[in-house]
Amino acid sequence: MGRQVTGMDQWADMYSQRATHLRESEIRALFAVVSRPEVVSLAGGMPNIKDLPIARLAESAKQLILSHGPQAMQYGSGQGWGPLREQIGNVMSYEGSNPNPDNVVISTGSQQALDYVTQIFINPGDVIVAEAPSYVGALGVFAAYQADVVHVPLDEDGLIPQALEETLADLKKVGKRVKFLYTVPNFHNPGGVTMSLERRPQIVEICRRHHVLVLEDNPYGLLGFHSEPIPSLHSLAPDTVIYLGSFSKMFAPGFRIGWAVAPPAIRQKLVLASESALLSPSMVGQMAISGYLSDYNWYGQVKAFQGMYEERCQAMMDALQEYLPDCTWTKPTGGFYTWVTVPEGIDTKEMLPRAVTGQVAYTSGTAFYADGQGRQNIRLSYCYPEPDVIREGVRRLSIVMNREKELVELFGPSPKTSPEKK
Amino acid sequence: MGRQVTGMDQWADMYSQRATHLRESEIRALFAVVSRPEVVSLAGGMPNIKDLPIARLAESAKQLILSHGPQAMQYGSGQGWGPLREQIGNVMSYEGSNPNPDNVVISTGSQQALDYVTQIFINPGDVIVAEAPSYVGALGVFAAYQADVVHVPLDEDGLIPQALEETLADLKKVGKRVKFLYTVPNFHNPGGVTMSLERRPQIVEICRRHHVLVLEDNPYGLLGFHSEPIPSLHSLAPDTVIYLGSFSKMFAPGFRIGWAVAPPAIRQKLVLASESALLSPSMVGQMAISGYLSDYNWYGQVKAFQGMYEERCQAMMDALQEYLPDCTWTKPTGGFYTWVTVPEGIDTKEMLPRAVTGQVAYTSGTAFYADGQGRQNIRLSYCYPEPDVIREGVRRLSIVMNREKELVELFGPSPKTSPEKK
Repeated sequence: MGRQVTGMDQWADMYSQRATHLRESEIRALFAVVSRPEVVSLAGGMPNIKDLPIARLAESAKQLILSHGPQAMQYGSGQGWGPLREQIGNVMSYEGSNPNPDNVVISTGSQQALDYVTQIFINPGDVIVAEAPSYVGALGVFAAYQADVVHVPLDEDGLIPQALEETLADLKKVGKRVKFLYTVPNFHNPGGVTMSLERRPQIVEICRRHHVLVLEDNPYGLLGFHSEPIPSLHSLAPDTVIYLGSFSKMFAPGFRIGWAVAPPAIRQKLVLASESALLSPSMVGQMAISGYLSDYNWYGQVKAFQGMYEERCQAMMDALQEYLPDCTWTKPTGGFYTWVTVPEGIDTKEMLPRAVTGQVAYTSGTAFYADGQGRQNIRLSYCYPEPDVIREGVRRLSIVMNREKELVELFGPSPKTSPEKK
Repeated sequence: MGRQVTGMDQWADMYSQRATHLRESEIRALFAVVSRPEVVSLAGGMPNIKDLPIARLAESAKQLILSHGPQAMQYGSGQGWGPLREQIGNVMSYEGSNPNPDNVVISTGSQQALDYVTQIFINPGDVIVAEAPSYVGALGVFAAYQADVVHVPLDEDGLIPQALEETLADLKKVGKRVKFLYTVPNFHNPGGVTMSLERRPQIVEICRRHHVLVLEDNPYGLLGFHSEPIPSLHSLAPDTVIYLGSFSKMFAPGFRIGWAVAPPAIRQKLVLASESALLSPSMVGQMAISGYLSDYNWYGQVKAFQGMYEERCQAMMDALQEYLPDCTWTKPTGGFYTWVTVPEGIDTKEMLPRAVTGQVAYTSGTAFYADGQGRQNIRLSYCYPEPDVIREGVRRLSIVMNREKELVELFGPSPKTSPEKK
């Protein structure tokens, strides 16, 4: 009785169009494999939270329930708790923004805010312009809403303004409706690059001229290495930018609290989307985060995280230098990831099972494109493993890759990586 | 800079079709007004959680973070935490179900599971059959996905099988695609009635014959007054029923943890929907609920809640008897609500502002229909106010209603309540 997959789905004729566009992300598919303890995972994006002051946080949780239990355990408002929305304004001031708390909408992680934004703008076939490559979780949402994603290249200074201009002009020529630009300007996931200060006003201006919204997704913004936060796109043009923020990387993901800031009319629709999908986000989660922001030196903790991640990044850079001299990679100045380009002929997606057999996991570049590109790239993350584990992971990867190169030399490149297939 | 609603929305041409179908629920619109302390609100569905063992729960929260902090504050799986899915199986066994934890999907409150189910089945124009009246939050989700809701009447024994049979046959005749029946079988919101034991297999059988899924929404199932739980529809036909459960009423809503149980193929799609919309539900919330289920006499607490809500229900029944003898109302055997029919000619939606002026709030019956019915009904909730406050609220309502009756006698009924407008 409902206990097994029988192979037959009697409801197969009932699903919505949209259900057929939901797809398993390559990262999620990998999850079971890479959580085996003998595998070094350079695949995930889990922050390192064991350095948080756990004992103090435990005491705070107790005090929260003791002093505010009936409020913390009750329903809240669909837009999110007022005091936390105020504090989010303060967090964003580090990047030069000064949002009215009325325009902040709290969500179950910023992923959900991404879903709301996509929901309220995208009809099937509408175009979203996004960096090449782009965050896999965003591509999943965009696919679910049947958006047509058009990639625009980035370089070491982030999204290339001229390429954006040309892409938008080309799309206009063929009559395509572009709803928004999706960008991760800081410490890009998966690219590991950061949009330069010079380019920021240019990008915003190009979008404004083409009447295209900017969706700025910024979970890593405060995690630059030994650097002050960079002014957000939102700080330059709050009327044109929807900003997504998250506590998952600067604090911890387990409370699932993120937020969106949007111009008032859009914010109103986001609140309706939240009420419809959720009624209200978790009050316990919101109040715990609020307490963390008010009772702790949260920015000091961010600084500590910066140093810790910088050390791990350096361990990865050193290991790449030593073990994978045939590859090229981006040099992150913050965040969790570097983007590696492997020698021609190697297909990183096809290599992955052999890497896992070799007890190392990465994410194939194909996860980060809507159009099948990325077979010559991998995303390596240095956020979760300790430096010596990172080093060991890259060493194992080099063994796998050297074998792969021998195969390519013997039998020729994988047909999928030949230029005409790209 | 983005600080006020200017009246002009420069992005007004950009919204999706779906965004135009998001609507503010009548309950949410009321929220600001009814939270004024001088107003007695019989409008909301907030559970009374101040009777929970707050001090012990505070200590549990501390221990959770202390012992399992790095896990509780980390990302989890999109389907939800395994141990909690096991425990949910145990909770459901009280109603005769025996779900495989593999088929349980955890969500941010059962509202979100409702959204997932609607998302994976409903294309614009598809039909959902639902009780008349139905839960306002479900109607909001169905509207957002542009479903066509067809109401089927219920009586004191719940949804009427013959009416369901006729409705489904009629819809088939006109070529309409019915995807599922949405039902709240226990202590109906807002109807206050419960589907009889006799009708349950009939309802399931009718749906099976018409190849229509059953979406069983059961947040109040364990909150029957001095009664054993009633076998769920899911327990009768796990291959035909998607079950939605919630900890919000039997424990507390602030963690926002609910769940769905579905046949394997459907469950798979629900997991994809969860991963896309959310990545994963809150681990802190899931582990807190799990701890509550394992370390507390949770069913004893449910029993205590039953007695407390029964006393409040009785206070409302007595007050209605005393103050509103011209009305009729349902006699709940559990749950939070009674459904009141007011004398002909009174329009409960139009009366509401005058009720709030008279310092009492209710929810107009119109909130619970997709088709504008309900002007002669109100939902009164007895879950949150104390018995003497309930009594005072009904007394105030009687004053408002008596004035309204005088107006009707003087000027005739509101045009909207005349039969030809129904």
